Amino acid sequence: MITSRDQVTAMIVASKVRQGLKWAHAAEAIGKSKEWTTAGCLGQMAFDKTQAEALGRLFELPDEAVAWLQIVPHKGSLPSAVPSDPLIYRWYELVNVYGSTIKELIHEEFGDGIMSAIDFSMDIQREHDPRGDRVHVVLSGKFLPYKSY
Amino acid sequence: MITSRDQVTAMIVASKVRQGLKWAHAAEAIGKSKEWTTAGCLGQMAFDKTQAEALGRLFELPDEAVAWLQIVPHKGSLPSAVPSDPLIYRWYELVNVYGSTIKELIHEEFGDGIMSAIDFSMDIQREHDPRGDRVHVVLSGKFLPYKSY
Amino acid sequence: MITSRDQVTAMIVASKVRQGLKWAHAAEAIGKSKEWTTAGCLGQMAFDKTQAEALGRLFELPDEAVAWLQIVPHKGSLPSAVPSDPLIYRWYELVNVYGSTIKELIHEEFGDGIMSAIDFSMDIQREHDPRGDRVHVVLSGKFLPYKSY
Amino acid sequence: MITSRDQVTAMIVASKVRQGLKWAHAAEAIGKSKEWTTAGCLGQMAFDKTQAEALGRLFELPDEAVAWLQIVPHKGSLPSAVPSDPLIYRWYELVNVYGSTIKELIHEEFGDGIMSAIDFSMDIQREHDPRGDRVHVVLSGKFLPYKSY
Amino acid sequence: MITSRDQVTAMIVASKVRQGLKWAHAAEAIGKSKEWTTAGCLGQMAFDKTQAEALGRLFELPDEAVAWLQIVPHKGSLPSAVPSDPLIYRWYELVNVYGSTIKELIHEEFGDGIMSAIDFSMDIQREHDPRGDRVHVVLSGKFLPYKSY
Amino acid sequence: MITSRDQVTAMIVASKVRQGLKWAHAAEAIGKSKEWTTAGCLGQMAFDKTQAEALGRLFELPDEAVAWLQIVPHKGSLPSAVPSDPLIYRWYELVNVYGSTIKELIHEEFGDGIMSAIDFSMDIQREHDPRGDRVHVVLSGKFLPYKSY
Amino acid sequence: MITSRDQVTAMIVASKVRQGLKWAHAAEAIGKSKEWTTAGCLGQMAFDKTQAEALGRLFELPDEAVAWLQIVPHKGSLPSAVPSDPLIYRWYELVNVYGSTIKELIHEEFGDGIMSAIDFSMDIQREHDPRGDRVHVVLSGKFLPYKSY
Amino acid sequence: MITSRDQVTAMIVASKVRQGLKWAHAAEAIGKSKEWTTAGCLGQMAFDKTQAEALGRLFELPDEAVAWLQIVPHKGSLPSAVPSDPLIYRWYELVNVYGSTIKELIHEEFGDGIMSAIDFSMDIQREHDPRGDRVHVVLSGKFLPYKSY
Amino acid sequence: MITSRDQVTAMIVASKVRQGLKWAHAAEAIGKSKEWTTAGCLGQMAFDKTQAEALGRLFELPDEAVAWLQIVPHKGSLPSAVPSDPLIYRWYELVNVYGSTIKELIHEEFGDGIMSAIDFSMDIQREHDPRGDRVHVVLSGKFLPYKSY
Amino acid sequence: MITSRDQVTAMIVASKVRQGLKWAHAAEAIGKSKEWTTAGCLGQMAFDKTQAEALGRLFELPDEAVAWLQIVPHKGSLPSAVPSDPLIYRWYELVNVYGSTIKELIHEEFGDGIMSAIDFSMDIQREHDPRGDRVHVVLSGKFLPYKSY
Repeated sequence: MITSRDQVTAMIVASKVRQGLKWAHAAEAIGKSKEWTTAGCLGQMAFDKTQAEALGRLFELPDEAVAWLQIVPHKGSLPSAVPSDPLIYRWYELVNVYGSTIKELIHEEFGDGIMSAIDFSMDIQREHDPRGDRVHVVLSGKFLPYKSY
Repeated sequence: MITSRDQVTAMIVASKVRQGLKWAHAAEAIGKSKEWTTAGCLGQMAFDKTQAEALGRLFELPDEAVAWLQIVPHKGSLPSAVPSDPLIYRWYELVNVYGSTIKELIHEEFGDGIMSAIDFSMDIQREHDPRGDRVHVVLSGKFLPYKSY
Repeated sequence: MITSRDQVTAMIVASKVRQGLKWAHAAEAIGKSKEWTTAGCLGQMAFDKTQAEALGRLFELPDEAVAWLQIVPHKGSLPSAVPSDPLIYRWYELVNVYGSTIKELIHEEFGDGIMSAIDFSMDIQREHDPRGDRVHVVLSGKFLPYKSY
Repeated sequence: MITSRDQVTAMIVASKVRQGLKWAHAAEAIGKSKEWTTAGCLGQMAFDKTQAEALGRLFELPDEAVAWLQIVPHKGSLPSAVPSDPLIYRWYELVNVYGSTIKELIHEEFGDGIMSAIDFSMDIQREHDPRGDRVHVVLSGKFLPYKSY
Repeated sequence: MITSRDQVTAMIVASKVRQGLKWAHAAEAIGKSKEWTTAGCLGQMAFDKTQAEALGRLFELPDEAVAWLQIVPHKGSLPSAVPSDPLIYRWYELVNVYGSTIKELIHEEFGDGIMSAIDFSMDIQREHDPRGDRVHVVLSGKFLPYKSY
Repeated sequence: MITSRDQVTAMIVASKVRQGLKWAHAAEAIGKSKEWTTAGCLGQMAFDKTQAEALGRLFELPDEAVAWLQIVPHKGSLPSAVPSDPLIYRWYELVNVYGSTIKELIHEEFGDGIMSAIDFSMDIQREHDPRGDRVHVVLSGKFLPYKSY
Repeated sequence: MITSRDQVTAMIVASKVRQGLKWAHAAEAIGKSKEWTTAGCLGQMAFDKTQAEALGRLFELPDEAVAWLQIVPHKGSLPSAVPSDPLIYRWYELVNVYGSTIKELIHEEFGDGIMSAIDFSMDIQREHDPRGDRVHVVLSGKFLPYKSY
Repeated sequence: MITSRDQVTAMIVASKVRQGLKWAHAAEAIGKSKEWTTAGCLGQMAFDKTQAEALGRLFELPDEAVAWLQIVPHKGSLPSAVPSDPLIYRWYELVNVYGSTIKELIHEEFGDGIMSAIDFSMDIQREHDPRGDRVHVVLSGKFLPYKSY
Repeated sequence: MITSRDQVTAMIVASKVRQGLKWAHAAEAIGKSKEWTTAGCLGQMAFDKTQAEALGRLFELPDEAVAWLQIVPHKGSLPSAVPSDPLIYRWYELVNVYGSTIKELIHEEFGDGIMSAIDFSMDIQREHDPRGDRVHVVLSGKFLPYKSY
Repeated sequence: MITSRDQVTAMIVASKVRQGLKWAHAAEAIGKSKEWTTAGCLGQMAFDKTQAEALGRLFELPDEAVAWLQIVPHKGSLPSAVPSDPLIYRWYELVNVYGSTIKELIHEEFGDGIMSAIDFSMDIQREHDPRGDRVHVVLSGKFLPYKSY
């Protein structure tokens, strides 16, 4: 009996290692971006029926797991408030070092409000550079203004 | 007597409110991007002598403060491990929800290593959109590979 | 020299005690709801110029404070992650006890997404009841769906 | 052997996914609101014998599980002090941003005391809106005054 | 300018030391129990006008402090989640060691609900005992049942 | 193989649910108060051989579990520093709100020292009250003075 | 105005540095052990009138500080749950590494109960040793048994 | 397959309960003090081959467990930063209340440095006392001076 | 089914104990330094195919484990933010005591930037010394400058 | 009145900025290494009289500050358990990623014990490298063995 989405995530990750798959294969299987698809496979997004079934075939999942993929998961992928993994920590550090800067500049341009993390998309690409390739990331989030009432 | 960079940050912020300045004015005054300049004014970067003096004139700072602006600061702008401000929290949430995805995709493309938060730049722009304008952010960080030895 | 919005909040609170004012007076002074106005006076919202000046007159604030009221504040009014004050704790307890329920029911009705805390309003009223009056609160937040991309 | 209510919650959730049930079905089965019923199914409330048996039939639970549903559970549904799930976090943020406001306004209206989280009910509805539907929540909690003695 | 109730608490405590007063004197001055009065003087309860003025005279407080005593305070007297002071820690230990016992026995007697900490009173007395005097404490809190809805 | 007292506690609780027993039955079986007996069954006290065997019969425990009941347990029944369960939290809140008061009044009566949580007893009773029954708790702890040396 | 014992501790420490005094001088001045006296001077014990006055003369304290020395302080001298100072940390490490051992051996010898930290004394001496002198510490605490009731 | 020393500790503790052994038996079996032996059995020290085999016989451990006893363990026996068990907490409290005193007195006698927790021994004895027996503990740790370089 | 790298680490450690291997054997098997090899075996580095297979033979791992050794792991080997093990703690203490010093001296020599923990190597050797052998550690990390943009 | 070593550290840092001094000047002034001297100036080591007076002249400190420099300080230079500053964090990350490796390798070479952080020295140098200069750090700490007793 599967009792949580985490178990399905573990099945997917184990299957991916066993079969030597890439996340790009999963994205291709459902016709979505690699960013959104990976987030979903790692338990952060819900899939529709067609997507879940395609992933079930790719990762050789049991029917019960396919059903779980269509349930909205309890989100959050960090095991601790401050992440220990060096790659993920660098992103936490960006928020730490640049957090107040981001806040000031968005308010300067847009006024009071936030950049949405829901109406949001992300694109990660390799940027060739003779001094060493770079990770080039584009984030796009709708500005949501606070309104008085 | 000024005993920490935080006091200089407070002077800059107070002066900005008093004079009705924008961060764009500070960026212009030193000929750098608004992102890097703001980070520096908020105590996250060090300025060279010319930059510090230009900022001293703009924000009407005493000489001692201008000296402090040239000292490498103790970095980190979050008052708590998990930020409470909604705008900054959304960025923490991105790291929380997408952290494992970012890790997987960078490793899939580049192998083991990290995206540098030091050899790094950021650009924040308004993206016009008929359904509501968006915050468009570009992050560029050098990929740094782990090597065996 | 005022160096943070917290100092302005302290001035407002002290003036309110000294003059025996009510939050309703502040709301009236700017023609907005008591909920939004109080949140703003407590350093959680930004006011426009007219509102700030009206509050400056009501609370007898110096010009510098009036300028600060128009700056977007660093939000968050809890001094600790888990609030100690019994009234505020009861709300934390609601989130703790009913959090998973709220999540399930919103997803059941709307699918994956959130209830916005930005495009949001709140109304607090006394509900007369012979067995003891009740606090009646209406919360209204826009549903924001996650979208695949 | 079942040794905690959490195991029963896991059984219910797994059964709900497997059978494609909705919380509304559970509420109907016991003739109570969807809010209270869901909270109970998620381990936050105790059921009486009739209710527990009805839920046992609906979710195909063993007798031992039905017995556990009648035991007062150890309450609290957040896995960490600050919730990571975006939907639940927005509610934590409301308490964080509006906590001091709620406190001030309830005290202004009622004097010293709290809004009960025990003698309490909640109702969650879809609010149609041409600019995007909203989540409309009504909370009603008895005011409990502090008394001197 | 007094900007928080904590400052008034500090004034009261300093005055008590300076004048060599006892909490019993404060209780007598306002005709209430020593438990409730002390809690109020330490910033945990609000006083009415007559009480506040009597305490103002006893502790030689300025008018502004007397006004603050009538404001509902932000409650909570522990400087850390787990108290370090040995006397207060013993009470935390009681909750830690006996917490699950108290929960079980109240539920066994009353069903699901809580013992109120608001509709509550406390009485602390010396209990003479030849093997060493004891602290005898009576706590009385209204039982508040959870109700289904 | 049983490797910790927690496993025995889980066995007792499961047996109690399965058999529909009350803690009063356990207290009766060993001739002690319901408070001390329940604390012991929940893993906070050690039993002597006769008591352990009586409880073993009542809860139908294996011999190994009966041996474990006679071992002094690792005490503490809270899963987190600040308890999430509403009933237990109210007690934490009492310590939080009244902690400094309790400290002041015990010192005023007895001088420097503590109220023992070891040479201690507790009694919980229903107190009938026309406005709603109350939980009446008596705590008695030996005063232990600090001595100079 | 002195509003807390911490201020008196700061005065004592500053005076000790300024005058080049040793804690042994303080112990001598009041005829008590250096351990108890130092603990008291550092804000962990209360002095009687004669002792406080003698310390007031030694450390050249104002009368108000002498009054504060006779008040039972809020105890606890660690600024964080895990101490950062290497000398104090070694003691925390002893509790961490040997904590379960101490518990087992005291229970093996005495049964269930604790070693009192109140009816307690400590003696710290230099132990000469050709391989390097040692710190020799004797702790003596009354055993307090848990009793059934 | 045994994958951590904790599993071996659990086996030893379970065997001790099952066989009704005392730690003194273990100490005797290897000819070392009861303090060091118990610490080792509880996973805080490493044994040599002879000692491990003797303990293997006493506690009826499999060969794999005997091998693990000879591996240096990951040390630390507290499940949380602040221990909840009353007996262990009293030791934490000693460090909390007396920590600054211990620091001051060791520095006064020895200068800057620490008392070693490695070149260290401990002896726990019953001290007979007509007013109640005491736990008498001797700690001896080498003083290690900081040196300038 | 193996679902995480931690399981592989446990297999390696168990095999090492069972076979009485040393980390030096692992380093030799893959022709890399003992520092990097051990870090990899403990789940902190990824191996290439040849290395993973050599380690698979040495530690007698199943094929699935060999596949996992080639996956970039989630890094971080501390079970808590502040490590409890005395050997590891001493390194945390170095960062605590010398952290600000290291920061100042690197900035004094190199300007603003960091010492890389990615382009990094470590060498640990025994340093013979008549007063007691020493652990001699060389750390080498590339300096990465912050640049303005 | 100076009441803590932190105030002296602040004076030194402010004086260093004001006069444009380097830590190398301080090291030269007292004839010690730059590492130890800087640690001392930042409040982590105690100076002797001659050293303190030389630093007093260099940094233009009042006599009271010179006295404080000779007092053993409360050590620890991190404002939070996990450091936020990127340079210092990289060192924390080393302990996190390599902590278990360091432990294993020191135990493999020396047996059970620790690398001293007290009988310790550190040397930080620039290492020229055509691919980018490196920070070269040598740490030397005495090995301290655990002994059985």
